[in-house]
Amino acid sequence: MQLDHIMQQSAAAFSQYKETSLAQRATFLRHLAELLDQGVERLLPIACAESHLPEGRIKGELARTTGQIRLFATYLEEGSWLEVTIDHGDPDRSPAPKPDLRRMLVPLGPVIVFGASNFPLAFSTAGGDSISALAAGCTVVYKGHPAHPETSLLVFELVQAALKEQDLPAAIFQHVAGGIAEGQELVQHPLAEAVAFTGSYTGGKALFDLAYARPKPIPVYAEMGSTNPIVALEEYCEANMEKMASDYSQSLTLGAGQFCTNPGLLFIPESKADDFAALAAKLLAAMPSQLMLHPGIQSAYASAVEAMKAQAGLEWICTPDHLTAALPALARVKMEDWSASHRLHEEVFGPFGLMVTYADREQLHAMPALLQGQLTITLWAEEQELAAHEGLIAGLGSRCGRLLFGGVPTGVEVGHAMQHGGPFPATTDSRSTSVGVHAIKRFARPLAYQNCPDSLLPEALKEKNPLKISRTVDGKLSLGD
Amino acid sequence: MQLDHIMQQSAAAFSQYKETSLAQRATFLRHLAELLDQGVERLLPIACAESHLPEGRIKGELARTTGQIRLFATYLEEGSWLEVTIDHGDPDRSPAPKPDLRRMLVPLGPVIVFGASNFPLAFSTAGGDSISALAAGCTVVYKGHPAHPETSLLVFELVQAALKEQDLPAAIFQHVAGGIAEGQELVQHPLAEAVAFTGSYTGGKALFDLAYARPKPIPVYAEMGSTNPIVALEEYCEANMEKMASDYSQSLTLGAGQFCTNPGLLFIPESKADDFAALAAKLLAAMPSQLMLHPGIQSAYASAVEAMKAQAGLEWICTPDHLTAALPALARVKMEDWSASHRLHEEVFGPFGLMVTYADREQLHAMPALLQGQLTITLWAEEQELAAHEGLIAGLGSRCGRLLFGGVPTGVEVGHAMQHGGPFPATTDSRSTSVGVHAIKRFARPLAYQNCPDSLLPEALKEKNPLKISRTVDGKLSLGD
Repeated sequence: MQLDHIMQQSAAAFSQYKETSLAQRATFLRHLAELLDQGVERLLPIACAESHLPEGRIKGELARTTGQIRLFATYLEEGSWLEVTIDHGDPDRSPAPKPDLRRMLVPLGPVIVFGASNFPLAFSTAGGDSISALAAGCTVVYKGHPAHPETSLLVFELVQAALKEQDLPAAIFQHVAGGIAEGQELVQHPLAEAVAFTGSYTGGKALFDLAYARPKPIPVYAEMGSTNPIVALEEYCEANMEKMASDYSQSLTLGAGQFCTNPGLLFIPESKADDFAALAAKLLAAMPSQLMLHPGIQSAYASAVEAMKAQAGLEWICTPDHLTAALPALARVKMEDWSASHRLHEEVFGPFGLMVTYADREQLHAMPALLQGQLTITLWAEEQELAAHEGLIAGLGSRCGRLLFGGVPTGVEVGHAMQHGGPFPATTDSRSTSVGVHAIKRFARPLAYQNCPDSLLPEALKEKNPLKISRTVDGKLSLGD
Repeated sequence: MQLDHIMQQSAAAFSQYKETSLAQRATFLRHLAELLDQGVERLLPIACAESHLPEGRIKGELARTTGQIRLFATYLEEGSWLEVTIDHGDPDRSPAPKPDLRRMLVPLGPVIVFGASNFPLAFSTAGGDSISALAAGCTVVYKGHPAHPETSLLVFELVQAALKEQDLPAAIFQHVAGGIAEGQELVQHPLAEAVAFTGSYTGGKALFDLAYARPKPIPVYAEMGSTNPIVALEEYCEANMEKMASDYSQSLTLGAGQFCTNPGLLFIPESKADDFAALAAKLLAAMPSQLMLHPGIQSAYASAVEAMKAQAGLEWICTPDHLTAALPALARVKMEDWSASHRLHEEVFGPFGLMVTYADREQLHAMPALLQGQLTITLWAEEQELAAHEGLIAGLGSRCGRLLFGGVPTGVEVGHAMQHGGPFPATTDSRSTSVGVHAIKRFARPLAYQNCPDSLLPEALKEKNPLKISRTVDGKLSLGD
């Protein structure tokens, strides 16, 4: 009942908010970024206490969050994302006159956003999902994550202040505390038009199933993590063994392994596996233990690692004696055993790594077809040795949203070219990204105006291009200014 | 078993076809258009006999089909649809180096396309869905429509000839005859990556449900038609009554009413309804009877009109005595009765029109919120009288994919700015179009390359922009040449 009222308010606010200009929305977002930056002293202690994340990390995350908001403000104002396309009419065309057609993207409507436990700021209340929806002109009903309730409410308070400052209705952004039942009710509400989620496969897939079973199905953008394989080739191993062990150990344990892009799988030549294992074991054993985000995640990690012990062919490189804190674990398995076990393809949330050893080129090249959809795949290869591996890059690319050449998958750059998404089960919609400016398009759909008098057209479509945005006119793309 | 073989072949051909250059694909499509144009003498008699459509219409549809293919060839080669976005790296950035990121759209994989009965050429074998998938770099398994099997096979033969001429694998485009069971099996096959469909709500929704219940869900682009309301305002009626009756009667009966954009609903002021009804009744009664596409559609139309007779408040303006052919039918109902009956909101496929009379401004403005999602909505209004109807355009725009100012919704222009789609239940994905160049994006997803050596990058992403396509570089859009 109360949620129904919230959705009614969101729909009412949407009819007003969608009419705001690009400049108005950008100003609102920039003001919000300002308030968040100014709120650092209030935010830090609460977010650190609730998430168990160190102050340096939360500080960095706040900077990432406000940088992200400012990026969306700039991008939304630039206007190319509206995909304005104009075909001039020709009343004299025979046999039928050609209509004047003008197409642009318009916002979908109220969006339900679910915050993530592992990023109390950047993927939560004023995180990428909320901000890209607001940038698109949608209203947001934000379902706060129970792992950081106070952080969530404090950020919500700042969003409200930014709305008020711009004389925008408070219902443009509403906050709902609560658990699974509330989330489900919101997703099923007839006025909801889209859903964004970052979290577990179980949670995301459940919302996806609910949303598609509605009388009127709505899109669900669920980013559900993945195993983010690193694929190491022989010559690279020969030249970089120490660096590999060090990079891998650090990436695996960063933030207690609680990143969507945590490298849970490492494909490595059988001949190099002993050396790598010995080096990595030493480094991982020396890692300090870290607290995980909350006790539920901690115990899920411990059980998942424990359950791994039953898997055929698994050999442990580094087994923590006790898993009361997030101690890293590393195991190895042969390609044939990995191929045969569905469980070994699934993500373990936390600092668990699995080395999959391959015997030869044939095993390596057969692997991409066996891989589930991934957010990222990282190739550790010398440039010249790839000449002997035709088809490998294409095969790996067909299984992920981001393909890295060297480096580690943790660390998701916020920018124009980032793709943070990937084939199912990494996400429920491989056509979308949840990080980077293209995220805005998840919350918009095309609308074409046919033979509309110029005075009645939206600014973006008017003949004289008053917004000075890039548009495709009669098949030709032109810059706005 | 045989379908499994077909899907395996499609996946194998995909790994080859997706590596073709934009220019190669464009050449293949242009050659196909050429072969279709040359095949007119063979195609005409078969398509006319199978569809019961007159020769002029089929001739026009063939021209539309080949024009559409050439448009996609030009558009795919132009390259802006790849959305190439490049962020240059900065190895010296502190605290962490900035990666070089390059993002573009890549094809999804094998697509299952279902042909439509009402367009044996333009929405069938080499119609918009097949061609946009091929343009994107996807392979196609085409499920032929049983209403025009010979036309389908003849077009298929020409596609094969075009592939052969370009030395492309035959399995890039495969043809499956058969019925519902075959279609379902294809949609459920693990190697299928997307589905495109044009037809009834029942058919489209069933495929949608199947595809989203798969272990790995895949997108379904089903265009399921709608009632395409025309909304007439008072002053317009006063000035244009004769034209209105004539335009409406012609649009309603065009092609025996068998268009997705057939104007099944007309909202008209109560004070104008008698005059309009009298004029339209005379025009419709004089319309020659037309054969519908096949006996199944004919009898479905007759039953649907018959069933309408049980609806409360319905008054018949024009009731055909016998419905053995597609004779037009027209009824009227008050807004309050229309609002109360779910059945009156649904499409009747064929030349059935329903006038919904509104008493006042309040009833008119409350109407958009009651409307289902539509492909089109047409506003018949004098420009100056809209000043008194603030919010009406926005309300109508929120319910459709294309908003027309004057004219009639039948006649879907193929071009850059067309939007042929709309909120559910008009389609299963309001973010997409099935007509116009943007249709290509339905079959692609983003892939980002991080720190990839230039020599290994796809042509579209190489630093020197060898394809000379428009790209967004470091946040700035630039034209290719």
